[in-house]
Amino acid sequence: MGKQVIVKVPATTANLGPGFDVLGMALNLYNTVVLEEMDGDCQLIEVKGEGEALLPRDNSNLAARAASSLLFSAGYSNHGYKLYLENQIPLMSGLGSSAAAIIGGLVAANILAGSPFSDQDILKMAIEIEGHPDNVAAALLGGVVIVTNGEESYMYTRLIPKEGLRITAVVPDFNVSTADARSVLPKQVPLQDAVYNLGRIALLVTALREGDWELLRVALHDRLHQPYRCQLVPGLIDAFEAALESGAYGAFLSGAGPTVIALTPPDCEAGGIIADAFRSRNIAARVLHLEPCLTGTYISDAQY
Amino acid sequence: MGKQVIVKVPATTANLGPGFDVLGMALNLYNTVVLEEMDGDCQLIEVKGEGEALLPRDNSNLAARAASSLLFSAGYSNHGYKLYLENQIPLMSGLGSSAAAIIGGLVAANILAGSPFSDQDILKMAIEIEGHPDNVAAALLGGVVIVTNGEESYMYTRLIPKEGLRITAVVPDFNVSTADARSVLPKQVPLQDAVYNLGRIALLVTALREGDWELLRVALHDRLHQPYRCQLVPGLIDAFEAALESGAYGAFLSGAGPTVIALTPPDCEAGGIIADAFRSRNIAARVLHLEPCLTGTYISDAQY
Repeated sequence: MGKQVIVKVPATTANLGPGFDVLGMALNLYNTVVLEEMDGDCQLIEVKGEGEALLPRDNSNLAARAASSLLFSAGYSNHGYKLYLENQIPLMSGLGSSAAAIIGGLVAANILAGSPFSDQDILKMAIEIEGHPDNVAAALLGGVVIVTNGEESYMYTRLIPKEGLRITAVVPDFNVSTADARSVLPKQVPLQDAVYNLGRIALLVTALREGDWELLRVALHDRLHQPYRCQLVPGLIDAFEAALESGAYGAFLSGAGPTVIALTPPDCEAGGIIADAFRSRNIAARVLHLEPCLTGTYISDAQY
Repeated sequence: MGKQVIVKVPATTANLGPGFDVLGMALNLYNTVVLEEMDGDCQLIEVKGEGEALLPRDNSNLAARAASSLLFSAGYSNHGYKLYLENQIPLMSGLGSSAAAIIGGLVAANILAGSPFSDQDILKMAIEIEGHPDNVAAALLGGVVIVTNGEESYMYTRLIPKEGLRITAVVPDFNVSTADARSVLPKQVPLQDAVYNLGRIALLVTALREGDWELLRVALHDRLHQPYRCQLVPGLIDAFEAALESGAYGAFLSGAGPTVIALTPPDCEAGGIIADAFRSRNIAARVLHLEPCLTGTYISDAQY
């Protein structure tokens, strides 16, 4: 058996309400990526768990593409490998499954090649493949990340949310493509809506760092993307209302959706009532009880 | 001599670059408000320092208006008073002189009347008089405040910036009215400019709380108000460039301007070179070396 590397990459939720294209948070739901050196130059790809029936087994597989690309850059490309994915992250649901696959492929391949690249390098490669930075940065670094775009290269910083927040994700059984979710957004927005989100993202960053959860009742509100994306997620407004009725501090569309995430006190059972908002529209929905993943991507010493 | 109350109210800077209409910071430059009970029902108003030649001595004086209004609400209005202002805060310069006058009048009058109103009440009255919350909240509470507007009433929280930041204010010798500064802003802005500021305000809040000053090199950038206000402040772009050349982390227009504030390392002398950006346009400019005021408005035990 050749050299084997196992990394666990967390799911991620982006935007968190007001933090459109800026905030990402890692969650304790993982894609376990096992990369094993093989003789020859062929790639063998296996998938279990979420996406088992859907994910490609050839070089169009995102994790394989990321791994091959890094191995090529590292001058390590004349080795074959076996790639095995054991995936807990629902696909195309707004929980960062593609970011996890990309980061998993890159990090595992980097270790296999003797770690020629820094986290910074890996993040840059990941953003190039994924197209936007919030999910990949959170998946790599863990906790909550703040990423800025702009005239310079991406800049990011990480914050560790205080303990005591319950995260309930409700995953309705349909998909929203990120392209569709972007196409419904206007190019221009009212200045006062921008100011509205500015205040809330500042409160949100403070609430998460300080554990001042009551602030979340205002800090999760958004006027820049969710109002436009309602049309793509039938039941979204009802789901938000259900979350509040159940005692949640608030709820938001996870990434481009359709997953809805509620942030609640520890004793709050928001999942069922939010899921009912979808089920009453004949949309099946799963409830996941999650926590922030503070470590980000890590090397596992499990045996495969 | 009747009962005398002395309060010191700090200057404030609003917006701090990306935090348009959301962030305010108190500075250690004060309006000292002395309120003294007098027999009869007349008001005697004296002013020294900044605005000595300009500020009205009748009931149109903002501090007097605020004091009278609170005394009336407290059922304390059949007393006369003497109001003495010793003011260090330049007028109409973007340093919160009106917010300080309002808060000073309200807080002093509240104490004179036996403190019937809470800080929350006082803030509400102050916002009604001032029209926007960022300066008055920072002047009352101190530190850096985050204020949100929106469908609900105002919500605010306070953060204490880490030590180690030098604040240099350059006050050019002309005025910008808040009304003019608002009238040049567009009603609609590009969504990507909103996202640009969202990332930066999140970084800024983090930088101030953690003392991670290097983040300020990105975190002070703004696309929502300063680009439009350049036209009202000749020399502004040169002033920003001068600040960076002198080694500042960054600079911003204080409130509606025209004061420019640079945030710098302790050993950085940014004031002269920023002032030159105005002086080269034949605009006189003063340099003030400031620090954050963490206490907010406080009762002084000085004698007047």
